[in-house]
This record gives sequence, structure tokens and C-alpha cells, in this order.
Amino acid sequence: MQRYFCKEKINNQIILYDDDYHHIKNVMRMNKGDNIEVVYDKKVYKCEIKDFDLIEVIEEINSNEENLEITLVIPILKEQKMDFIFQKATELGVSKIIPFYAKRSIVSDLKEKEEKKIIRWTKICKEASEQSKRNTIPIVTSIKKLEQLKIDGVKLVCSTREKIENLKIFLQSLSNYDKITIVVGPEGGLTLEEEQKLNDMGFKSITLGNRIMRVETVPIFILSVLNYISME
Amino acid sequence: MQRYFCKEKINNQIILYDDDYHHIKNVMRMNKGDNIEVVYDKKVYKCEIKDFDLIEVIEEINSNEENLEITLVIPILKEQKMDFIFQKATELGVSKIIPFYAKRSIVSDLKEKEEKKIIRWTKICKEASEQSKRNTIPIVTSIKKLEQLKIDGVKLVCSTREKIENLKIFLQSLSNYDKITIVVGPEGGLTLEEEQKLNDMGFKSITLGNRIMRVETVPIFILSVLNYISME
Repeated sequence: MQRYFCKEKINNQIILYDDDYHHIKNVMRMNKGDNIEVVYDKKVYKCEIKDFDLIEVIEEINSNEENLEITLVIPILKEQKMDFIFQKATELGVSKIIPFYAKRSIVSDLKEKEEKKIIRWTKICKEASEQSKRNTIPIVTSIKKLEQLKIDGVKLVCSTREKIENLKIFLQSLSNYDKITIVVGPEGGLTLEEEQKLNDMGFKSITLGNRIMRVETVPIFILSVLNYISME
Repeated sequence: MQRYFCKEKINNQIILYDDDYHHIKNVMRMNKGDNIEVVYDKKVYKCEIKDFDLIEVIEEINSNEENLEITLVIPILKEQKMDFIFQKATELGVSKIIPFYAKRSIVSDLKEKEEKKIIRWTKICKEASEQSKRNTIPIVTSIKKLEQLKIDGVKLVCSTREKIENLKIFLQSLSNYDKITIVVGPEGGLTLEEEQKLNDMGFKSITLGNRIMRVETVPIFILSVLNYISME
């Protein structure tokens, strides 16, 4: 069943976002009487299209909540790579994405484009959440500087330095954790100064091993690993 | 140092592929006297550009060999998704990629385009191998039917069936293995008949958990996990 995140739920009536009415009618070509899944406040409801402006809840559906809160802190990259990360990270269960200006980012200031970008990234996350049937849409924050990060829980930074602990040894050393944040560097890596700043803020430097990965592959790698670890 | 896979090595002289001469001269704008890394027969050599048609070995460089032979069996998908898989799987250490016609593949016969496609995919793998400084280029085979697969080692098929063993439990049950093959299904999954055929051929059905991933994300997920497991 097609899943949509809704804008509001008033008693048993569902208010969708404008785009989604269009999607239901013109893309999915659904008819009156068809059912859809609607997510509101992390709960999932089976609903019926009574009319194209009248969608009603039939029943609540049981669904799995996310247990681990995963935050990704990613540098500003070229548009295509950013889009890729937002889509794939959402599929793989990210909770929050914080874009940041890295010293070696090609783009160091998006200025007036920032608001538009955040709307675009949020839309990608919403669509990917619907496609992968998540109950939450990842939060996309405004673009930060490293010193503005306020993070609790387990804190990691992917480092290109040699002879440091790898991700596996680090994760195996942890007991329970319900929040984890990972900072990924840009092409060319974080500067030593940036990494030191993060270390001072409590971020542990770890390596992902000897492979040379493109920047946009790194978040996917880490999220895959976190999903794997949480398999029971 | 820029890395190239070479066509031939005759004593100390290196013969590159035509494209790479162009890349050195016109893209990288290198000069006589500059050094490059060249891979031949899984060995890496530091070389000097004596002239644009004369490249000589200076010395062999120590390098890590891949220990685990990973084969991916992937359905024919739309071009962009195929390209994505070939590039990312190469980055993450795949050894061989076998494309196959799945019952639910949108494209069920590439006919005369097949040869061109394989050349394209091989080129993507070569470039990604150079970028990620691998010593081997993954082998891309011709497009197979499932019954043509001849595989030894550990054999897995990613299933959408419920209540089956997950990847983690399965991998943890293995002792040493040096070859692993994973079959990934198309959008909509393998048919029950296809999965049964693979089971009969010794492929174990496993689940990757509850996440709903796009097809092209699955190989990256698995390769990330295999890299993680092999961290020491």
C-alpha cells in the first residue's frame, strides 16, 4: 500500500500535503474507495480515499519504531552527491542529517540558496521515507559550522589518519547506546585542525579501514554497518 | 599518486591503454619526469613518465591483496542504477559481478546491446578501481540466466520472505571462508520459482532485516557489512 506522511490528522480525517493529493490522483491514478497508509505523529494508519479531498482513517496499523537515533554530520558537496546521501541515508534509517561547511568543501557558503536547499533535501527525505515505509522523516537542520554542533550520545568522526582505532573495535567496546552521531569529512578529508576541534568536543576519531571510498559512500557504509549490528 | 591499470609490462617498460595516455597528458596534465602508479598482474609499480609514449618502472610498491573473493549476482536494472552498482561495488572490494536476467527485470533481453553494456560496465569498474587504488579490476561476466551460474564457496540469496535467517546470524555461523557469492533480486523481488531454483543450487535464503531498500542499495549494504566484518 502506498504510504504518505500527512500534514494533519483531525479526529479521523487526514489532511495531506498538496503534492500528495496530486500524486494519489494523477501519478498513482487511485480511485475513490482505494486504501493508502498514512503516517502521523510516528503512527501508521490504514485509510480510505472517500473522495479526493476526503481521506478517512480505517484503523491503526502496528509498526516498528526506530530504536537507535542516528545523526549524520555531512559536508556540503556537489548537488548530486548531496541528493544521493539524503536519499540513501533515509532508506537506511538515519534520524537526523546536519550539513556543515568544511574547510575543504568546494562550496563554503550557500548564502541565499540555503533555504531552498534545505527544502529540497527535506523533500528527498520525505519521499524516501514513504518509499521505504518509515514512520519518521529524518530531520534536516540548517547548515552549521563545526563549533555550533551540540550533540550528546556516542560521537564519532571518520578520520583518514593512520594507526587509529577502527569502527569495529570501537563499536564492540560500547555497551548499550541509543544515540550515535557520525561526522564525515569532504573530499580531501577534514583538516587536522577541524578533527582536533571535534576531538575536543568529544568526538572519537575512527578509521573505516584501508579502502579508499568516495565521500558519498561513507555514510552508506556506516549506516549499513549500524543496521547489521542491530539485527537480532 | 595517480594509479592506472596497464595493458602490458615488458621488462621495465609499461604499455598503458590508449585512454590513459590521453588522461595523463590532457586531463591530469602531467609532465615528463612525473611519477604514476601502475598495476600489472595484481602488483603495483611506481613508474616514471620518461616520455608520453615511454613509461618505465622505478620500483615495486608493497600493497595489500584482497583476501576475500566476493561475487555479486545482480539483475539487469535501468542504466543509471547499473552504473551506480558497478562503481560503488568496485569501491567496496567486489571481485566479480555477474549480471542476470530476472523474471521481474524490466529489461529481459539486451540482445545486440549486451556487448556494448559489458564494455561500459568494465570501464566503470576499471576507473573506480584506479580511483580507490585497488590492485585488481572486478571481472564483469556476460549476462547469465540463473541456471547458468556455476559457483563455489558460500552462497547467499537476498530474500524478501519473512521468518528466515538474517544475514548476521548466518555470517556468524560460518567459520573461515574465502569466497562468498550473493544474489540480489530486482524491483519486486525474485519469483518464488527463481528463489527455489537458487536454493536447489545451494544458495541459502537470508533476509537483511525489516528495512525496505531500493535494489541498488542492497549490494552496497552487503559489501559494507563484509568490509566491516573483515576489520581487524
